[in-house]
This record gives sequence, C-alpha cells and structure tokens, in this order.
Amino acid sequence: MRIVDLIAKKQHGKSLTTEEINFMIEGFTTGEIPDYQMSAMAMAIYFQGMNDHERSDLTMSMVNSGETIDLSAIHGVKVDKHSTGGVGDTTTIVLAPLVASLGVPIAKMSGRGLGHTGGTIDKLEAIPGFTVELTQEKFIDLVNKNKVAVVGQSGNLTPADKKLYALRDVTGTVESIPLIASSIMSKKIAAGADAIVLDVKIGAGAFMKTEEDARQLAHAMVKIGNLVGRQTMAVISDMSQPLGNAIGNALEIKEAIDTLEGHGPEDLVDLCLTLGSQMVHLAGIGSNLAEARLLLEENLNNGKALEKFKEFVASQGGDASVIDHPERLPQAAYQTEVLASRDGVLSQINADEIGIAAMMLGAGRANKESVIDLAVGLMLRKKVGDTVKKGESLVTIHSNQLDVTAVENKIQENIMISEKAEPIQLIHEVILD
Amino acid sequence: MRIVDLIAKKQHGKSLTTEEINFMIEGFTTGEIPDYQMSAMAMAIYFQGMNDHERSDLTMSMVNSGETIDLSAIHGVKVDKHSTGGVGDTTTIVLAPLVASLGVPIAKMSGRGLGHTGGTIDKLEAIPGFTVELTQEKFIDLVNKNKVAVVGQSGNLTPADKKLYALRDVTGTVESIPLIASSIMSKKIAAGADAIVLDVKIGAGAFMKTEEDARQLAHAMVKIGNLVGRQTMAVISDMSQPLGNAIGNALEIKEAIDTLEGHGPEDLVDLCLTLGSQMVHLAGIGSNLAEARLLLEENLNNGKALEKFKEFVASQGGDASVIDHPERLPQAAYQTEVLASRDGVLSQINADEIGIAAMMLGAGRANKESVIDLAVGLMLRKKVGDTVKKGESLVTIHSNQLDVTAVENKIQENIMISEKAEPIQLIHEVILD
Repeated sequence: MRIVDLIAKKQHGKSLTTEEINFMIEGFTTGEIPDYQMSAMAMAIYFQGMNDHERSDLTMSMVNSGETIDLSAIHGVKVDKHSTGGVGDTTTIVLAPLVASLGVPIAKMSGRGLGHTGGTIDKLEAIPGFTVELTQEKFIDLVNKNKVAVVGQSGNLTPADKKLYALRDVTGTVESIPLIASSIMSKKIAAGADAIVLDVKIGAGAFMKTEEDARQLAHAMVKIGNLVGRQTMAVISDMSQPLGNAIGNALEIKEAIDTLEGHGPEDLVDLCLTLGSQMVHLAGIGSNLAEARLLLEENLNNGKALEKFKEFVASQGGDASVIDHPERLPQAAYQTEVLASRDGVLSQINADEIGIAAMMLGAGRANKESVIDLAVGLMLRKKVGDTVKKGESLVTIHSNQLDVTAVENKIQENIMISEKAEPIQLIHEVILD
Repeated sequence: MRIVDLIAKKQHGKSLTTEEINFMIEGFTTGEIPDYQMSAMAMAIYFQGMNDHERSDLTMSMVNSGETIDLSAIHGVKVDKHSTGGVGDTTTIVLAPLVASLGVPIAKMSGRGLGHTGGTIDKLEAIPGFTVELTQEKFIDLVNKNKVAVVGQSGNLTPADKKLYALRDVTGTVESIPLIASSIMSKKIAAGADAIVLDVKIGAGAFMKTEEDARQLAHAMVKIGNLVGRQTMAVISDMSQPLGNAIGNALEIKEAIDTLEGHGPEDLVDLCLTLGSQMVHLAGIGSNLAEARLLLEENLNNGKALEKFKEFVASQGGDASVIDHPERLPQAAYQTEVLASRDGVLSQINADEIGIAAMMLGAGRANKESVIDLAVGLMLRKKVGDTVKKGESLVTIHSNQLDVTAVENKIQENIMISEKAEPIQLIHEVILD
C-alpha cells in the first residue's frame, strides 16, 4: 500500500477502506508518512469529503493511535457531553452535578485551552482549594462514590488527532466536516465515553457560522457515534449572543450556583435541561426525554442538584462554603457599568466580540503562556429582546484595572439597540439519531 | 503575507495575485515555505484551477527562481519545440537540421531522461564521436555559424519547478493542467526560447489520455506563452500507435536520415512538416504556414536538410559518414521477426506497451542508473490500417540477447489484427493562438 495511491483515490472521489485509513493514520503517527503527503490528503478530503464509514474508521483509527481511558470500573453508563465552544457557556459546571444528582455517573476529563474565558477546569479552580489533579484510581473512586468527578487531561490520548490538527491548522484544512467530526469524536471516545451528547453551537460566537454547516457537523458526529457503538445525540444551539449572563471564570461559577439554586438565566437553564435530558435518557433513566427533563427540573427545585455540587466541590478539595457565600469567590477590584446610549430594544449582542472584550480583561488565554485572572469578566444586564432606557446599564465590567475604556468601547460597538428585535431561537434542532 | 492565507484563498476558488504567487514560489524555493504547505496548495490548485494570469505568473516566477540561458548573442528569432513525450518520436532529430536549413536558428538544450528510449541526446550519441558537451560560447558560435547546435542541460534552471515537481510526484498532484503547463513553459523560457512550438501527444502512449485534457493543456500553454511575450503555437497529435517505424536510439537516427533524404514514414514526415512550418513561421520566414511548409518540403527533397544534418553532426564531433553509411551506426547482434498469427487488418498498436517492450531490450532507462543499449529496439513493419497475411512480419526485434520470448509476447499481446480498422487521425488540432 502506498499513500500516494490513497491520495489519488480520494482525490478522484473514491472511498478509502478501513485498512487504507488505518495504514494512513498509523503511518502518519509514526512519521513514516510525511506531513507533505498528509496535508495533500487532508486537502483532498476537504474537497471530496468522506462517507459515514470512512468517518467512523478515521475516528477509531485516531482513538487507536494512542492510550485510552478505561472507565469500566465505574458502574453504569458513562455519558459525556461536548460543546463545540462559545462565549459564556457555563453548561458543563451546571450539568455535571445536576445529571449526577439523578445517579448518572459523570466522569469528566476536561481541559484548559485558549479562548474568551478559561476552560471548565479554570472555572472550577476559581473555587478556593479545588483540584483536578487526581490519580486514575481516585478519579474512579470518586465517580463511584459521588457519581461525579472532574480530572485534568493526562495520558497520550489520540496523538494522531493532535498531529493532524496541528498540520490542518497551517494548511487551510481545518474547515472540513469529516475531519472536525472525527477529531471531536475520537477525543470523547478515547476519554472513555459510553454515550455522548453534543452541543453544536451556531452563530457569530461559534466555530460554525452557518446553520447548514452546524447541521452537517452535528449529523456527522451523531452518525459516527452510533456506527462505533457509542449512542450519540446532539443539539444545535444559538451562539449569536453569549449564553446566560456571565462571561468570566468566577462569574460563571456564581451563575452556575444560581442556576443550581433554581434561578438561573432562562436560556442557560433551557439549554442545560435540553442537554441534560439527553444525557439522562442515554444513561437509561426515564422512559423518554420529557420524563428525564421533569426529573432534572425537580432536582433543580428541590435542592438535590445544589447538594450534589457541594459534595462534588468538597470531594475535590474545594471550599464548598462558597456555594452558600459566593462573595468568597475571587472578586475583581472594579465594577464599571456600560450604559445604553438611547431608548429601544436590544437587537444584537455580538458574542464573538463580547468574548474578546472579556479576554482583553484577562478572563481568557490569548496564547498558551497567558495567565488567567479568575475574578474578571462581564455580566450582561440585558439580552436580545429586552427593552432598555437611555442610561440603563447594559453590561457590568468586572476588572482589576481602573481604565477599561477600550473594553467599554468594544462592548458599545457590539451591542445594537433598535426599534425592535428579531427573537432568538435558542434550540435550533435536536438530533436523536 | 502568510502562505496559510493564500492556501485558504485558493481553496475557496479565488485567484492569487502576481505578488502572492511570487511570495509562494520564492518562499518554497528557499525552503521558508515547507513542503506540507506547498503540497496542500498544489492540491487546492488541482481542485480549483488557476486563471490565465495566475498560470503565466506562476511560469515566470519559476523562471525567475534560478538561472536562465542568455541566447541574445544569437541572431534571429530562437524558436524551440517541445513534445509532451511519446514512443518512437524522432521529430526533434529531423526538425533541428530541417528548420535550420531555412536559416532559422535552432539552439537546442536537451536532456536524457527516463523512458522507452533515450532522450534526444542519447539518440544523437548513437553517432560515433557526437558530443553535447559544449561551452556556452561554443554553443552560441555554432548556432550563429551553422544555425543549429544541441547542448546538454546545465545550470540551475527553474529550481522551483524541479522542487515542486518532485513534491507533486509524491502527493497526487501531477495531473493538474495549470501545474503541468507552467512547468513545461518555465523550462522552455528559462532555456532562452523567443518563440515556442508545442507537440501535445494524445492516446495510450502519451501522458494525456483524453482529447479534452490534451486540448486544455495545449490551450493553457499557448496562452501562457503569448501572455509572457513568447509567441507560442501547438499541435495535438496522435500517440495511440508509435510515431514512425523505429523505436530505439540508433534505429531512430537511421529513420531520421531516411526522412531527411525524403523517404521517411508518412506520419513522421507529416508531423515534422506541421510542427516545422509553425517553427519557420514563428521565426518570420514565409508569409503563412502553407508557404513555410512548402519551403520545408523543398529542402527535404533537394538535399539541403540532409546537408545541414551532416554539417551539424560534424560540427559537434560526430562521424558524418554514418549519414551516407547508416550501417556504421551501432548494430544489434540479433534480429527476430514477430509474425502475424492470422490474416486481417492491423487495428491497434498499443504505443505504451510497445514502448515498454523496447525498454525491456535495453533501449531506454527504467531508472537513473540504467545503462542504455543504443543499438537495440524495434522496427514496425506494419502500422494501423495495413493489411497483413498470416506469417508476415509485423515487427523486427533488434536485440543483443538471443532469447527475446518475453518481448515477442508483449508485442503480440499489444498488436491487434481484426477484419477492419478505424483510421487514425495524426493531427487532432492545430492551435495558433
């Protein structure tokens, strides 16, 4: 078998067999297939696509390129959730204790990453004492005992994916549905998931800018999951404006607490219940999605989800008292209000640019060396569709610097007040198989 | 400027500017742009193509990547001819003295290369004493004095093309019209041509297998030439069966002598007159192609072309007596006839496989280390459309090995005798601008 023949095969629109895909990924991982052939192949895939079987073969080949996490010692169906990423997305912090409160085991491996705010781990570390440095044994024990634990990424998972992603990044081949879908799915499967719930974001603040791309990606991933024996469901959700009100690490922890206390922002609650009911249902609890949703709503209202959060925080060394006393979370030195310049209705909050404004404050990493300020960020006071009066606050800036003019200007430029607003649909589509 | 942005631009079907193409080729030549980005770009070009201006920019960028041959000291319009390669193609050996006999300067840089037989230089070296090792001064002097000289390739011409071709060869991006066209044209222009005549072959023995591909390539090259100020014309000619009767180095020299004496094989003569009349016309001789053709026919018949050949051979150290005594050319030890197995009409001679049969005898190089046997080869006794009787000779094998069973079998398998034959059209198209 020669890679140059496989490139030509794909280039001419033919499908690659399981053996051919394994040959390609194994050779690329060991370095026998050089970058210049793999980048030509990636470009051929960009133009010619891959069918469902090629996508699932590519996914499993990348899973098999490295170590995998063995969660078989955990009782029950391990359901993982993945979001394609957005601005102010606090769902994981809410969902982990909420879903676990129904007895579903949540064994979450999470990362830090680059972006507008930190990753899930950074956010959790806003809680004094909280650590994700757990041994594999301790991690599994905690999940069996409390039904929920979060651990930092470790091990050499999907090295083929890491190498391929780095190559795609410099060769214009990031935007390929089969390559994105197999990259995401391989990481979830290598991390030990039995079932997967996907939150594919759409809009200005999301990687996928168009409805059609988001739909294709979501369907591609659900198909891969089901073909490789991991039941998978997906939601396509709005990311034209930030989700919830908080954008920033400690601020999002505070918002998660509010939500677990039963009074979270409407959109965040709705999305958590939608994704959560899929997770619960995939774990075999509740006879249908509607019943699963009712069970989750019950635990938001009866305090059980909040109790589970306290237990989870304490079990990983965190100061659980912050949950009843959120003022003990890191606090920024200054608060500055961004005021409405006219009367009207909020018609647009550009999620991407608002996320960048948060990053300018220090809430997220611009590069690997950046140090995050856990206290800073933004609190939206108004969302799209809300009426505002001139001089009312639109956003509160939480900063550790006195001069926030540049951030204020960026926010003003990216919030539009009009006579009327088109309503935003939060859930665009639910994909069950 | 970043190459990753240029890849994305091409990937999305946009055109690259002159500056962008220069940035890409300069960076690739120096190694600042790595192979893995260039191969992704080549694949994007394969799928999205290039417009006429991009093609001419790419051509000139490759010309400027290395040395160029300065032929300005030669008087007159220097017209070069290029063939995309076939089996038994003796045209260059005929055309050089024939066109020069009308006073058109032929300053030919030629190569050895791989293939069914040797290159033009190998063929000429079948003449005892002939050398192509000339200094640049000597080469130019000879052209000014005799109007014709052939020199071996030297100098670092079009290094970008060499590097890009090697990369395309291993990344499935050879078959791209803009990349093939700019590769060929850059080499001709770097070798000093003022005007170019192209012979684009089509059929089993050619690189271009379909009429459509050959036509696109020919038009692409003519357009490039005219855009960069080198008047260019092209012919699309048949290579489904070998051209002429001889396949082998000394055998083709003998055939060239026959042709210059006025009794060459019909198809070879026709193609030489077609290409030659374009060369003569581009050099400014004859008021139109038909008149140029008449002048060439005259010199084939009045002995002037043959005289020019003798002068040319002698001027480069060759034994010109072989022209009157072709038996002094290298002779193979054995001749074996391949006989017709039935009565009928020759309906097919698979050029590619017949070429391989010649290579099996040692007439060509399978790899760079192969040593050519100048004496061996094949003489076709029949061409497509000829009637044959069972037991008549179809082909004479000239070999230095006694056992030629494998070669005989290959020839028998690739010559078809039927009840009737479709006539072969030699000249498919003439492209003047």
